[in-house]
Amino acid sequence: MASDTTDPAADLPAPRADGRRARGDRTRHDVARQAAMSATVHGLDAITVGALAARTGHSKSGILTVFANREAIQIAAVAEARTLYLRHVVEPSWPAAPGAPRLRALLDNWVAYLRDGVFPGGCFITATSVEYGRREGPVADAVRGLAREWLDLLEAELSAAGSDSPTDDAFRIDAYLRAANTRYQLFGDEVELERARRLSLDVLGA
Amino acid sequence: MASDTTDPAADLPAPRADGRRARGDRTRHDVARQAAMSATVHGLDAITVGALAARTGHSKSGILTVFANREAIQIAAVAEARTLYLRHVVEPSWPAAPGAPRLRALLDNWVAYLRDGVFPGGCFITATSVEYGRREGPVADAVRGLAREWLDLLEAELSAAGSDSPTDDAFRIDAYLRAANTRYQLFGDEVELERARRLSLDVLGA
Repeated sequence: MASDTTDPAADLPAPRADGRRARGDRTRHDVARQAAMSATVHGLDAITVGALAARTGHSKSGILTVFANREAIQIAAVAEARTLYLRHVVEPSWPAAPGAPRLRALLDNWVAYLRDGVFPGGCFITATSVEYGRREGPVADAVRGLAREWLDLLEAELSAAGSDSPTDDAFRIDAYLRAANTRYQLFGDEVELERARRLSLDVLGA
Repeated sequence: MASDTTDPAADLPAPRADGRRARGDRTRHDVARQAAMSATVHGLDAITVGALAARTGHSKSGILTVFANREAIQIAAVAEARTLYLRHVVEPSWPAAPGAPRLRALLDNWVAYLRDGVFPGGCFITATSVEYGRREGPVADAVRGLAREWLDLLEAELSAAGSDSPTDDAFRIDAYLRAANTRYQLFGDEVELERARRLSLDVLGA
């Protein structure tokens, strides 16, 4: 610390370090959030540090202080999308009893998550699991992990609901939700979301 | 035609023009095919003239003589993918009687098309309809048109098969095929393709 500083806080390094950490946390959060949003419209692999800087108001150098490289941003985007998915779809469904009641709540909350446009291009899991289907590496691994986690959750709840074939039924429901999302994005018709919910309830009822 | 030419074919313009046209057709075909293939792995919007030149062996200037711009290549890629889809999935199914027999043939040929890796990243329709879900413009319109054509085909065959609800049943079968493709790309397990065929046959049988 230079002795000729005129900053009255110069002898108080802890608050300044906290300030830097808070700024870093804010940059990390804003950039990961923006990358997750952009991934649903333009693809997770189309993000650039320059575009993220322009969208978030953080400098490129500030972003590259917090993230080692573009890949680290992409992995943080998957983690941020998972957080949003938990907040909007999973957590509000968890008070319902395991099995059929929780699955019905998950369907309600999933339709609301799409209709409310939590992500501008719809379901993050659908977008990235198609984009990264044939790729390898840490970003693809993060995408695979998130897709697998969702499928395992569906299958566990279907088991709890007494499904004769939880793997087939999880496949059916996941397929309906993905297809509804894709059609809703392509053609803009909300009826597809309701159709997916109705056909999924048929799976539960069967 | 310059009178001092030493080219013995200089007085025969027709074959030379045919040669240029044949070269142009070859360039058009090779570039559209390569762009369609690449779209299933890296995205249709990630293609560049430079990468297509490197992959096809045609020069960038030769490519840009045939195609006005990158967008024209993307639209040609959708048309080429449609041609391949017709050749591998639709045409071999058409000799079967309309309705359930043709749908069973379509399912068989669709599974073979995925298993044979006609496109390196799996189903072109799934890849591009997710990638272009929220976009506008001529490329997005071409992608929407192809997705819609496939859904209409399924729905017409389900009507011919006597389905009580061809729209719901087409949604179900399309959803199973898309989900199976995505899981096959992500996790590499062929059992997903068989699962989609089996669950689709259940729809026909119901």
